[in-house]
Amino acid sequence: MENHRVIIVGGGFGGLNAAESLKRGAVDVTLIDRRNFHLFQPLLYQVATGGLSPSNIAVPLRSIVRHQKNCRVLMSEVVGFDLTNRALKLTDGELSYDSLIIATGAQTGYFGHNEWADLAPGLKSLEDALDIRRRILSIFEVAEREEDPVRRSALLTIVVVGGGPTGVELAGTLAEITRHTLRSDFRRCQPSDARILLVDAGPRILAAFPEDLSAEAERKLKEKHVDVRVNAGVVRLDDKTVELRSGDKTETIFTETILWAAGVEASPLGKVLMDAAGSSVGRGGRVPVTAELHLTEYPEVFVIGDLALALDQAGKPLPGVAPVAIQQGKYAAKMIMARLTNGTLPPFKYHDYGNMATIGRSAAVAQLGKWKFRGRIAWLMWLFIHLMQIVRFENRVLVLIQWAWNYITFNRSARLITDVDRRRADSNHQPAN
Amino acid sequence: MENHRVIIVGGGFGGLNAAESLKRGAVDVTLIDRRNFHLFQPLLYQVATGGLSPSNIAVPLRSIVRHQKNCRVLMSEVVGFDLTNRALKLTDGELSYDSLIIATGAQTGYFGHNEWADLAPGLKSLEDALDIRRRILSIFEVAEREEDPVRRSALLTIVVVGGGPTGVELAGTLAEITRHTLRSDFRRCQPSDARILLVDAGPRILAAFPEDLSAEAERKLKEKHVDVRVNAGVVRLDDKTVELRSGDKTETIFTETILWAAGVEASPLGKVLMDAAGSSVGRGGRVPVTAELHLTEYPEVFVIGDLALALDQAGKPLPGVAPVAIQQGKYAAKMIMARLTNGTLPPFKYHDYGNMATIGRSAAVAQLGKWKFRGRIAWLMWLFIHLMQIVRFENRVLVLIQWAWNYITFNRSARLITDVDRRRADSNHQPAN
Repeated sequence: MENHRVIIVGGGFGGLNAAESLKRGAVDVTLIDRRNFHLFQPLLYQVATGGLSPSNIAVPLRSIVRHQKNCRVLMSEVVGFDLTNRALKLTDGELSYDSLIIATGAQTGYFGHNEWADLAPGLKSLEDALDIRRRILSIFEVAEREEDPVRRSALLTIVVVGGGPTGVELAGTLAEITRHTLRSDFRRCQPSDARILLVDAGPRILAAFPEDLSAEAERKLKEKHVDVRVNAGVVRLDDKTVELRSGDKTETIFTETILWAAGVEASPLGKVLMDAAGSSVGRGGRVPVTAELHLTEYPEVFVIGDLALALDQAGKPLPGVAPVAIQQGKYAAKMIMARLTNGTLPPFKYHDYGNMATIGRSAAVAQLGKWKFRGRIAWLMWLFIHLMQIVRFENRVLVLIQWAWNYITFNRSARLITDVDRRRADSNHQPAN
Repeated sequence: MENHRVIIVGGGFGGLNAAESLKRGAVDVTLIDRRNFHLFQPLLYQVATGGLSPSNIAVPLRSIVRHQKNCRVLMSEVVGFDLTNRALKLTDGELSYDSLIIATGAQTGYFGHNEWADLAPGLKSLEDALDIRRRILSIFEVAEREEDPVRRSALLTIVVVGGGPTGVELAGTLAEITRHTLRSDFRRCQPSDARILLVDAGPRILAAFPEDLSAEAERKLKEKHVDVRVNAGVVRLDDKTVELRSGDKTETIFTETILWAAGVEASPLGKVLMDAAGSSVGRGGRVPVTAELHLTEYPEVFVIGDLALALDQAGKPLPGVAPVAIQQGKYAAKMIMARLTNGTLPPFKYHDYGNMATIGRSAAVAQLGKWKFRGRIAWLMWLFIHLMQIVRFENRVLVLIQWAWNYITFNRSARLITDVDRRRADSNHQPAN
């Protein structure tokens, strides 16, 4: 008899944890992702700011599951569902399943302003991070050649939109780069003249944290010369300006670099799935699921992580964070194994261990249950937890060494402006012409 | 009084050594490159094969010269020369010089078949290396999904054209990856079934080496299951086949991956320069220079490195290798400083310390003066010399650790398929749809 076939779509935190939890099950697992690697998204801002290399935070899916004999990896793309016949349509063929776990996550969302995507890149993929790295490093290069002080000042203004953990990490790190790393690099332009703005539409940054930790983060950012603007919504932007509105006041900021950390929306595969199920997506394009994380009509189809609209015991949507995805991945795997012996599990329950955000070198805020931490101790906790989480990565020691090195020397050696689009034009040996 | 203004175009081995040799001179140095980093080209094949990350072998030019107060870096592109008025035309402005050093190197050359460039990428830039890495890793992904054994066999055939050091390094490393690194990664396709061909039009590989070392390299490659074809010229290629001719026999190889390490041609800036000088370029687009490495009519304009057509004492062109560029860069700098006190230098003399090429793990060949080395000792020499050369890179320790780690574990953790062109499409969190 053939084993029960489980297909997992998406190799992020949710999908990968589901695959690993099925290790000892009498199942055949197929993990499908259109990329060949798992990305450790919490450190993506380090790539965007030149502190780590892509390979420090991404690891080939195949090497993660290479010794899990019941799991194969397929680099492919899902384009449709035949839920009645339990089959997936891929760009190159079809696949049948007995159980399905969909974990394709979320992408940057612009609240209906998709035309802003090119002007204000988000930070969700490695390519995003390299694009942001290129943009940030390039403004200092252009500023070094610019004679007009007004344009130079606009060039040296960076606006980070969104005061969540990603926005705070980006703004804090950018402030350090301009004041320390790049200090002696330029002759005409002074990177320390750069102005970093962190803009949030809400009344405070880090809204998911207790109020006093938000205030602490804001204080720390200001100490690093970040200009924090709360209650300030972006109402318009182009390649030279961004317009902020606070109440009935509007202000125009002259800038050529806007980074978008303000919102996410679910992967578009959610809508494809809901169309196939004859239903519709919920808020933010997320897929409504039962308390057992599956579709109401199709109990063999689980949706987990940022793509899922799962509710907690109080009926509130669970947040789109890694711990939710991880716990849901494990739950879905266990449920599939329980059903193999005609068992079941109680509804999914999210264990919230807390929340943390780093603001830069030696500064972070953390809330773990009832405890709150700030300053160096919070930063060390943040570092420890993130390093432990990438324990599955064989190069964790190298990341640690790189990190220690960067910390001691203010070094950011991955300050490379690379751009595949220019490949042909640049195939010159050390081209300068 | 203003200092003597030296402009150096190109931040490769030649330009960078020129800049550093001018450290103590009473000169103002401007180093222009269209990239923001120096690239350690000898290890580019390690990036192409996933062993090292771009930032391991590239270092921002600004951080190299940050403490050299008389040197500024400009990221820009030279588009023309006004030799009479001693001025450079940049894409964004003009710059005057008193002395000029041009060191823009070489690019991949296709012997008049530029239409092959997209089908058979060369290995001269970081973007080239990432492109090759993506192509190589992708063929195994496609082969894993391919049901037709004929197509699978074509997919798993990689043809490396050119038996110089780069071709030998690529072929040797690819053979190791397929036999070791990827061994347990796939379920249906067997990476060890991959066929690596190394093709050279001449009678032996490593033609610049003594004959017995060529033979040793060929033997080592065959031991690693590389199919070495000498006296085999590429006469035609498309996206499915490459046609080889040996004598009057032709053979068609079915392959979708051709890597081009067969030739270089000088940077096109050489022709722009010669047009401005009312003269013409020499063989391979190189710029003929005097025994003092400058243009005949313009003694203040030096041309060095791969771009220069400089002759040795016997009247033969110097090879396009890093040691020539390094020595010429130092010479040009010293000559400029000598002239400041109305002095001069004897003609440039190249000190040839030898030649080395690595064939893979623990295998290399080296010829140093009269001595020849092979096997593990040659490999350790190769490793030592290359690590010493990147001593200027602040992250040399990290490269060494990465290398040791890779060596012990057969690891190649930078096996990421990344591609900026797909950025928008892939902005999904761990996208699989």
